[in-house]
Amino acid sequence: MARYDIAVIGTGPAGISAAITAKVRNKSVLLLGSRDLSGKLAKAHEIRNYPGFPAVSGADLAKALSAHLSQMGIEISDRRVSAIYAMGEYFTLQCGPDFEEADAVILATGVTAAKALPGEEALLGRGVSYCATCDASLYRGKRCAVLSWSAAEEGEAEFLSEVASEVLYFPVYKEEPRLADGIRVIREKPLAIEEENGQRVVVTGEGRYPADGVFVLRESIAPGQLVPGLETEGAHIRVDRSMATSLPGCFACGDIAGTPYQYIKAAGEGNVAALSAVAYLDKRRRKDDNT
Amino acid sequence: MARYDIAVIGTGPAGISAAITAKVRNKSVLLLGSRDLSGKLAKAHEIRNYPGFPAVSGADLAKALSAHLSQMGIEISDRRVSAIYAMGEYFTLQCGPDFEEADAVILATGVTAAKALPGEEALLGRGVSYCATCDASLYRGKRCAVLSWSAAEEGEAEFLSEVASEVLYFPVYKEEPRLADGIRVIREKPLAIEEENGQRVVVTGEGRYPADGVFVLRESIAPGQLVPGLETEGAHIRVDRSMATSLPGCFACGDIAGTPYQYIKAAGEGNVAALSAVAYLDKRRRKDDNT
Repeated sequence: MARYDIAVIGTGPAGISAAITAKVRNKSVLLLGSRDLSGKLAKAHEIRNYPGFPAVSGADLAKALSAHLSQMGIEISDRRVSAIYAMGEYFTLQCGPDFEEADAVILATGVTAAKALPGEEALLGRGVSYCATCDASLYRGKRCAVLSWSAAEEGEAEFLSEVASEVLYFPVYKEEPRLADGIRVIREKPLAIEEENGQRVVVTGEGRYPADGVFVLRESIAPGQLVPGLETEGAHIRVDRSMATSLPGCFACGDIAGTPYQYIKAAGEGNVAALSAVAYLDKRRRKDDNT
Repeated sequence: MARYDIAVIGTGPAGISAAITAKVRNKSVLLLGSRDLSGKLAKAHEIRNYPGFPAVSGADLAKALSAHLSQMGIEISDRRVSAIYAMGEYFTLQCGPDFEEADAVILATGVTAAKALPGEEALLGRGVSYCATCDASLYRGKRCAVLSWSAAEEGEAEFLSEVASEVLYFPVYKEEPRLADGIRVIREKPLAIEEENGQRVVVTGEGRYPADGVFVLRESIAPGQLVPGLETEGAHIRVDRSMATSLPGCFACGDIAGTPYQYIKAAGEGNVAALSAVAYLDKRRRKDDNT
């Protein structure tokens, strides 16, 4: 497996800025995220304080950022990253069913307004999963629940239904789900995940739904869950002025690194995170050369 | 005198970004700096990592930033700021011969490569000055030396020569000075400023030049000298992640706030500094309302 110099997670302004600066510094970059960039950005009506783009629409700024990536030959891989493991000298990233490796990681995933459900974190890895593609095979012939915050996840539910005996689908969004027959859509808001008699139970205001596996599919994963061992402060990753996190070789930038939630602040921090990652790699390689 | 909400010192990407965000937040802004923006920016051959502007020349990025200021109705005042005093509840800025007041200050002056000369800081205010326009009248009929790092300062020397009995001009730049007759140009590198028999002495490699007043005119002033009482770290101002300095109401951003020296990092920090200044003002005004 080719190991990248730097993996950047997230394609909002922070991640794009980090990838651009890393590429300028001749590092190999794996940029993972949505191909249509940050959904939040594209939906912004008017942005007035990204210097150089007066009164720009979010869609137009997203276009300019995309064009910048293309001009530099940086491609986006839209695989979902469900976990990142610090291996000491490098990082392993679980990207859908694949694994990737990188010497340094830059987290630019944005913040999710959604908090973890009660019980979610405690049961993670014990019947609760963030990745249907990864863990479907564990539930062959069993009953699964999918709690989904986006219509983009419907494909995951369909994939699950090919393997599981039954799939309950809880859409936490407005659109009407378009799913294969046999997937049971339950329009009730999930409030908690519990454990009872060796099974998981999805609790809503109206009922209790036992399942062998519960898949929680949000647009982004809380950072402490994405990268085990990472120090967080509330919804944010703890960083210093160089955008270094508590894990050597792991940097963070943009909304996930703290307020204010602003595009130009995110872009600036992406640049700093990339240069800090480059300095980390260069220092380590000089050390390797000396031993 | 009208008191501004926020004074921003410097018109590189950090200062421009700060002024734009402060204006978006409906604050009155005094933006002080060079009208042709940061000289360093305009001279940059190609900038590859300001997201949204692939492979842009410094001159073109400067044009885009200028256009953004114009579109928002923000004007640049090109008076030189020679000192900023924290008055407790507000700041007084010495701008050439004028004084201005602001409730909060954002320093975005960039860094100067030039270090203070030996003796310069110790004699500041005792025969050493940074502002001919301000202090010329102290040297009526006396002998002055001007140490100048830029041809743009020649006007200051000419103004001095109208008042002083003699002006010695030490150009620390390549161009041939174009000065009125009677100003003596000395092409020797100033190494130190000393005090001897109640006079100042400019020391060069070749000689010693006594003078009553010594004017040191660089493109920017060391931050600790610009704002008395400000905590610095080497050439930089100490800031936290909100870009707050050691003085309440005083914020800093861009190169002066630390490395890396990058345009997009500066623009991002300008945004953060402005929002922190806005939060500072809003909090203080809520407090005033309650008393």
